[in-house]
Amino acid sequence: MDIEDLAERILAGERRALARGITLVESGRADHKTMARALLERLRGSGREAMRIGLSGTPGVGKSTFIESFGMMLVAQGLRVAVLAVDPSSARTGGSILGDKTRMERLSRSRQAFIRPSPAQSHLGGVARRTREAIALCEAAGFDVVLIETVGVGQSETVVAEMSDLFLLLLAPAGGDELQGVKRGIMETADIILINKADGDLKATATRTCADYAGALRLLRKRPQDPEGFPKALTVSAALERGLETAWAEINALADWRRETGHFAGRRAEQARFWFEAEVREGLLARLRREPVKGAMAALAAQVEAGQISAELAADELLETYLGESLPT
Amino acid sequence: MDIEDLAERILAGERRALARGITLVESGRADHKTMARALLERLRGSGREAMRIGLSGTPGVGKSTFIESFGMMLVAQGLRVAVLAVDPSSARTGGSILGDKTRMERLSRSRQAFIRPSPAQSHLGGVARRTREAIALCEAAGFDVVLIETVGVGQSETVVAEMSDLFLLLLAPAGGDELQGVKRGIMETADIILINKADGDLKATATRTCADYAGALRLLRKRPQDPEGFPKALTVSAALERGLETAWAEINALADWRRETGHFAGRRAEQARFWFEAEVREGLLARLRREPVKGAMAALAAQVEAGQISAELAADELLETYLGESLPT
Repeated sequence: MDIEDLAERILAGERRALARGITLVESGRADHKTMARALLERLRGSGREAMRIGLSGTPGVGKSTFIESFGMMLVAQGLRVAVLAVDPSSARTGGSILGDKTRMERLSRSRQAFIRPSPAQSHLGGVARRTREAIALCEAAGFDVVLIETVGVGQSETVVAEMSDLFLLLLAPAGGDELQGVKRGIMETADIILINKADGDLKATATRTCADYAGALRLLRKRPQDPEGFPKALTVSAALERGLETAWAEINALADWRRETGHFAGRRAEQARFWFEAEVREGLLARLRREPVKGAMAALAAQVEAGQISAELAADELLETYLGESLPT
Repeated sequence: MDIEDLAERILAGERRALARGITLVESGRADHKTMARALLERLRGSGREAMRIGLSGTPGVGKSTFIESFGMMLVAQGLRVAVLAVDPSSARTGGSILGDKTRMERLSRSRQAFIRPSPAQSHLGGVARRTREAIALCEAAGFDVVLIETVGVGQSETVVAEMSDLFLLLLAPAGGDELQGVKRGIMETADIILINKADGDLKATATRTCADYAGALRLLRKRPQDPEGFPKALTVSAALERGLETAWAEINALADWRRETGHFAGRRAEQARFWFEAEVREGLLARLRREPVKGAMAALAAQVEAGQISAELAADELLETYLGESLPT
């Protein structure tokens, strides 16, 4: 494979070249890894920057319909839209949130759009790395908006929030005691909460749900990266394509404010440092997950759980055994 | 210092011996560390178990008054109460949340109570380790309840929640737009939210605040470790000593349910494993914070923030340089 040729075709915005580039960064083969690294280094500093929008929502809230409608609206405005997914479970289940492109029929046929399912990795750290590299490729390919979607499972929302400029939380209307769906802590990461399905019989419920979440957001402490009125809750109807322009206007208002105040660039720098430190930690821990360290760690963890040895002593013992010489305390 | 003698006096419940033991585990001196380890190992398996209650609240909510009133109520019931603090800022500010014992005049004079300020460490990992060791010493000394208090700053609430059987969040009454005090994500860790100052002019406001938080809690997903009705919000008046028996009854109802269902022991085992893994990570990262690794990491982080090198490449480079031989990929 000619990396220089691939890079130039990606820079020219060729979707097939972009797809091949992403396949390369997702590959586990050693020669592919070397090529992927060369490709990413070649494309670094293209100077192109997309708006990276994270999107989370549990199954049933109409996420695919939303992405289809929202994406088509952006395309109609002349923007190029890439959709990526972070779904660490897809490797296990065999399925993938974006695997079924028929649910986004119009968007998947648009020449201005690019849709890519989650990389098939069972490990969230691996999915995160691949997705960040895919974002870099999409930006080099000149996409204006990169939507990174995730289901609200485990740590995946935090991971997506840490690679997004803005984070949207999509919710379904629900009444009273049904409102059990939001994972604790997720409101921490949301910039805009969208209550979908604000149409037909559910419209009144959606309006009420929106007011409930607006109230809950007011209970939380203001963050420095938010102008007055943010985070906010809005209703949308993805099916009837209502409220999408308003949502896009709010997204831009927030992004503009953050650009003017330096929070936009500041957040990207923070995220870069976050991922560097995460990669260092991850690399260290990966070395602990290999034998013989792995076996020793499992045995010690069992002793710690049973109260036979303290967490501190067990950790000291493990590190002393395996790192004593190269990195002494 | 005779460690065997100190251990026996701690097991006999001597408060001065307990204080000396805690001073020992807090010390940074190498010989003290060896002795502290011997002491902790000697006391391991005393079979004594306290109820470990985490308590968070920002300054001004009446935390000291609450601890004083709540602690005295427990003492009146014949229970022995230890109060510890986790405040990673105390080393910097020179002050400490529990430093001013005059704010807990009655409790600090009670022979059934033991109050200890936060260890003077600037590093949260260090504070966490010392506090867990102090909890172990308090349990060996036969205390029935260990209150671990923290101010709602940074990660300290998470740290306290991970060493507590139950976690209380103390809030002040506040109306409408003033309700900005709760850090995002903190509701994730709270088992019981207590609205303090439900007395005098603030009583109606406290009742309304309590209802607001009860509503917000219902918006969150139910956790397996919670019986029906938990987490819950209650009003108390620490100044007038009202609602404290009810709060204690709810704490016990929750603890009893968790004991019967195995969640109590399960959580302790999970916490032990959590701290073991945290200690391993911490130990690894501590080795990275020393020269020459520290300098190399700072230089790489700056390059990553500036977009000159990718997070992945920078991490690989660092680990390859310093761990390549002892723990190859």
